[in-house]
Amino acid sequence: VRVGALGEFGLIERIARIARRHQGEWVVRGIGEDAAVLRPRAGQDLVLTTDAMVEGVHFRWRTLRPTVVGRRLLAANLSDLAATGARPRGCLLSIQTPVSLPVESLLGVVRGLARDGSRLGCPLIGGNVARAEQTSFSLTVAGSVRRGRALSRGRARVGDRLFVTGTLGRSALDLVRAERRHVPIRRVPEPRLEAGRALTELATTGACIDVSDGLLADLRHVLEASEVGADLDLARVPRPQGFAAACASLGQDPTRLLLDGGEDYELLFSMRPSAPTASALTRRLKAPVSELGFVTPRGLRVRTASGWLKPGRGGWRHF
Amino acid sequence: VRVGALGEFGLIERIARIARRHQGEWVVRGIGEDAAVLRPRAGQDLVLTTDAMVEGVHFRWRTLRPTVVGRRLLAANLSDLAATGARPRGCLLSIQTPVSLPVESLLGVVRGLARDGSRLGCPLIGGNVARAEQTSFSLTVAGSVRRGRALSRGRARVGDRLFVTGTLGRSALDLVRAERRHVPIRRVPEPRLEAGRALTELATTGACIDVSDGLLADLRHVLEASEVGADLDLARVPRPQGFAAACASLGQDPTRLLLDGGEDYELLFSMRPSAPTASALTRRLKAPVSELGFVTPRGLRVRTASGWLKPGRGGWRHF
Repeated sequence: VRVGALGEFGLIERIARIARRHQGEWVVRGIGEDAAVLRPRAGQDLVLTTDAMVEGVHFRWRTLRPTVVGRRLLAANLSDLAATGARPRGCLLSIQTPVSLPVESLLGVVRGLARDGSRLGCPLIGGNVARAEQTSFSLTVAGSVRRGRALSRGRARVGDRLFVTGTLGRSALDLVRAERRHVPIRRVPEPRLEAGRALTELATTGACIDVSDGLLADLRHVLEASEVGADLDLARVPRPQGFAAACASLGQDPTRLLLDGGEDYELLFSMRPSAPTASALTRRLKAPVSELGFVTPRGLRVRTASGWLKPGRGGWRHF
Repeated sequence: VRVGALGEFGLIERIARIARRHQGEWVVRGIGEDAAVLRPRAGQDLVLTTDAMVEGVHFRWRTLRPTVVGRRLLAANLSDLAATGARPRGCLLSIQTPVSLPVESLLGVVRGLARDGSRLGCPLIGGNVARAEQTSFSLTVAGSVRRGRALSRGRARVGDRLFVTGTLGRSALDLVRAERRHVPIRRVPEPRLEAGRALTELATTGACIDVSDGLLADLRHVLEASEVGADLDLARVPRPQGFAAACASLGQDPTRLLLDGGEDYELLFSMRPSAPTASALTRRLKAPVSELGFVTPRGLRVRTASGWLKPGRGGWRHF
């Protein structure tokens, strides 16, 4: 069945049925009217973020299954929320689709998103459907955080230590492998929601951002917003098991994937000098934490075994 | 200058500069990080809605100037919010654009939206920019309403009287005129925010919806959600001054424009039988109010001078 055969309201009804299976008790009103109603607790700040996936630009049906498209779109948005330390409350999906798109592709996206949303406390509560030549999905996520406690990229200070959760480079490697071997990407990075919330409770927390554009690109966002610089130690950038071998087998430069690879959705954060050790933070954030450098008055340098790297304009760009 | 020449971050900086001129004191953090932070008051429910405009489907640059595209997109979203009685708090704009789009077209959309948003208490606080083949703008608006007081389309009861604000058919007429005479549409309907808020304070208020798809289509949404029917009186459907003559000069059927014309963004609502008169409601809602029928157990009928109309599947469909 093609999307065009259902009609707008028929399509919305199918989407609503999937979404209604996955709600939360803070959802006063979900899909079905022009506007959704949430009831976050008093004394909380509301956090909002939005991100989109366009067919042919951010994904191809050939390399991503529909449920994975939905799950990755949600993960990208929730990662932005995690970087503020907020708890997700609900999301709205704006769909643009040609009438010729198979309904199952579209509902697969909704299903993947609604299921993960339910698991992560972020039910699908509304949205919009519009006709277009190119398929795209734009998601807006709402979350809440204790009043005045939202983390920011602008709070790094000279002398802060720099940390990152998990490992970097795996999503970039997935992408190269998928394109090279014509296999779909199945892995969906897990947004670091719990780690973000834990960071709001620590007095030593400085700046925080999620690594979506690449380590250096996102670190630059922190440095610009905080008006500081940084020294990184390449050897301390955490990499997945078997990373060097995987890079070699695909003919990839591991340094480039580590420093510029995007969409890993790990949290990069700074802490005042009196911060706990990386292993104490690992316990506190319930995620592996590595220390990889510190904040300087200006400039960005990466130390390698053979001297200093001068990074170019790396990172991902949409243009 | 084309969009592609600025790069993603250059473009975002230009958008942020426009948005920062138009903020509100409840905006804790606007454009500049991955997520925006709002602080609505305690004891309030958060209301969220989203809508999109796609070039070639919902607008053409030839018939809508960029500022008008932005203003109409905001009006469409705020009208959905008005139908819940919520007060707007802020909005996020997700932009999809080819690299060849002139920057001034894109910034014109942002400017129109940010200016009206500021005037209407709904600052632009965030968003996303993505490359695509087709230009489109997807907007999400967040608002708040007194706890438990959000209006709904599902609360009409048999015996309720039906009212509508303003007049209907003007937007449909604008569209015909613009297409026929190749002149751009300049008018932007004003969302009925104040009227919606006033309805939340009245004990006699039943159901409420905004007229975006057309009077009959939106009335049907109310009837389905409330599991009731309605009788309308065609002669009492409020029309703009000079409407009959304008329809005649353009060869349009006035009945069709009144009943099926969309995008007027008026509020259609029901009230318990003890409701004030239309003129008392006009004072209370600070908008012209007309009474145009009542709620019945089932079916939808429209009375005309020559008998009953059996409306077909009218109203606007995106497919």
